[in-house]
Amino acid sequence: MPSIAIDPDRLLGDLEHLRSFGAREGGVVRRAFSDADIAARQWLAGRMEAAGLEPVFDPVGNLFGLPKTDTPCILSGSHSDSQPEGGWLDGAYGVIAALEVARASADAGGPPVAVVSFQDEEGRFGALTGSRVWTGALPLDEADRLTDLEGRTFAEARAGMSGLSGPDFVDPGRFSGFIEAHIEQGPVLDDAQEAIGVVDVVVGIRSLQVRFTGYQNHAGTTPMDARRDAFQGLVAFAEAINREFVDIVTPSTVWTIGHVTLQPNASSIVPGQADFTVQWRDGSVDRLDRMEETVRATADRICDERALHLDLSNYVSVPPTEMNSGLRGSLEQAASELAPGKWRVMPSGALHDAANVARLMPAAMLFVPSIGGVSHNFSEDTKRKDLIRGAEVLARAIAG
Amino acid sequence: MPSIAIDPDRLLGDLEHLRSFGAREGGVVRRAFSDADIAARQWLAGRMEAAGLEPVFDPVGNLFGLPKTDTPCILSGSHSDSQPEGGWLDGAYGVIAALEVARASADAGGPPVAVVSFQDEEGRFGALTGSRVWTGALPLDEADRLTDLEGRTFAEARAGMSGLSGPDFVDPGRFSGFIEAHIEQGPVLDDAQEAIGVVDVVVGIRSLQVRFTGYQNHAGTTPMDARRDAFQGLVAFAEAINREFVDIVTPSTVWTIGHVTLQPNASSIVPGQADFTVQWRDGSVDRLDRMEETVRATADRICDERALHLDLSNYVSVPPTEMNSGLRGSLEQAASELAPGKWRVMPSGALHDAANVARLMPAAMLFVPSIGGVSHNFSEDTKRKDLIRGAEVLARAIAG
Repeated sequence: MPSIAIDPDRLLGDLEHLRSFGAREGGVVRRAFSDADIAARQWLAGRMEAAGLEPVFDPVGNLFGLPKTDTPCILSGSHSDSQPEGGWLDGAYGVIAALEVARASADAGGPPVAVVSFQDEEGRFGALTGSRVWTGALPLDEADRLTDLEGRTFAEARAGMSGLSGPDFVDPGRFSGFIEAHIEQGPVLDDAQEAIGVVDVVVGIRSLQVRFTGYQNHAGTTPMDARRDAFQGLVAFAEAINREFVDIVTPSTVWTIGHVTLQPNASSIVPGQADFTVQWRDGSVDRLDRMEETVRATADRICDERALHLDLSNYVSVPPTEMNSGLRGSLEQAASELAPGKWRVMPSGALHDAANVARLMPAAMLFVPSIGGVSHNFSEDTKRKDLIRGAEVLARAIAG
Repeated sequence: MPSIAIDPDRLLGDLEHLRSFGAREGGVVRRAFSDADIAARQWLAGRMEAAGLEPVFDPVGNLFGLPKTDTPCILSGSHSDSQPEGGWLDGAYGVIAALEVARASADAGGPPVAVVSFQDEEGRFGALTGSRVWTGALPLDEADRLTDLEGRTFAEARAGMSGLSGPDFVDPGRFSGFIEAHIEQGPVLDDAQEAIGVVDVVVGIRSLQVRFTGYQNHAGTTPMDARRDAFQGLVAFAEAINREFVDIVTPSTVWTIGHVTLQPNASSIVPGQADFTVQWRDGSVDRLDRMEETVRATADRICDERALHLDLSNYVSVPPTEMNSGLRGSLEQAASELAPGKWRVMPSGALHDAANVARLMPAAMLFVPSIGGVSHNFSEDTKRKDLIRGAEVLARAIAG
């Protein structure tokens, strides 16, 4: 295979141009189906065409750039929509890196490369909506009933995206595999001064909504031993799972109590009710299971001991997704050549489109560092040399 | 002194009648200065007059019933306003018990007894507003600037209470002491199957508003050891003060974390900020001091250990108020005669008007049981025989 030479100026120039759609204070505000998102997609379609790719919109607004070839080729890309207040690289990097690799490969006479920008990865309607619909994980009629915070349906949003949706879904049979480049969105590579992460697994997520119901009472006249304080129950629960997880977890495992609501939430009243979420993520189903047993048993025990009533709801279970070993091997080989001693195999703690695409074809991911681990934030950034090296690793893995 | 015979039917009949002002589903909605409150005060003034007392409203709406006597007499009473959704006995019991004792004493040729219903004890404008203004704890011009949740000022409220406020404050020199009867609002007497509590001290209250600021981050991509999770800081703080207070507190000491707000409060985001209140109550200044040292030192230590930023604000310190030993002795003597083996000396964990009146004259309190410890709730109740016995103890303590 020929060596594919990335053009750094073309890569960074297109990234900067994409940033200009919805640019704010260094970040971007480019929600799926917004005017900025539509304008960005129109521009992307033009860049694909200029690169010799045929731009094809599907019924939900996923944008593919298809090379003229009859044999299955590698698909690469990510998403170009942003969080409500997002950074300039989350998603955008993977789309432009793929576009640059497709151009560079064509320039070098390398293998044809298809490019994709999935729609609504960031969850205006539902997380990863575009890739879930394309891969069959979410039926279109169900997606159409999803609503955003303003009550607009997905069906209305895509109907209003004039000229930017097509009649047909792209046949997955056109592709031999999918590689997504993405910023890490965490501090691991940056802390270790490493340049490349090759993802072995997109971690699974489980979460539960928990309600502890005790008894709301006067904070002056109710002795401590007569209280059924729902918040103190939550404190005991959080402390207990922290302690018990130690025997189960790895350094990559994470768990979070991120949402807490007390009733009546007044400084002089013993809390009668605590609602909270507990979420845990890991790459191993067995470990997720053992953590779930701990969560459920601990909640039971705390409520028994403290005369609280327990309700569990909104159980969510997203299984871990292993990345394809062949594509992963190509990425590892490329990383070891282009970033010797400065790369690692690591899990992805965030969900990505690649986890959906893995339903249809071999899929893999590579990470570039996020400075300070910051993402979903205007100040999200990555060193220019790391952006370039990520595209070079992607190109070499595809060139084989 | 003659024996003063309480008339149970007259006591309970007046209590039931007072309940009818603002009655709802067994409880009452009788906020200070509401139509129901004003109607209740007009009726109370008439009942005072019928009992041979001169009804006198002061500038803030406190209603006194004054006997015709030139020598200082005992004042008894409480308040007749309610919580936004209150019970029928909180305050009302002490007012009607005082009225019945004044009547019964007059019937029996006993000592003259003055009666009072203080205004706005339950804090529509500010807690215990009526007794604070009367006792000089709160200057009237400051009180006038207090506002309720709808933005109405105390000045506007009392100006609108036509015919139910007078030009002058009643001279405290008319009274030799104050005794307030009240429901316990806690479970101690009911749990012990006791009939009377004689209050030794109205506990002091201290509270702090605490803010832990960490770093808001992605709950999937941020490893546990890289997190600065403000909620986990709160968990560690709550657990630590529970542990350290064990060496300081008595069974009467209470502490509460009743109000908690997380930012951004989302299940998939590591909380970047936790705001919470911590409040503690005890009858001893020394113990309150030692608890405060623990609270401040623990917050400092937790924030140091976890790289959180600490802000403390809204420091509140209400000192404990000892009840007068002479009046307390009279109540203890009466309780030991009328409820032998079924009474106790106990602190009041709630604030009461008596704590303000103690600034001006000897003051004391007695409690009757609250069924199940329930108060500030429609289902607040006390056995009829306990309501009667409380008035009998009050009468005997006043008769000497």
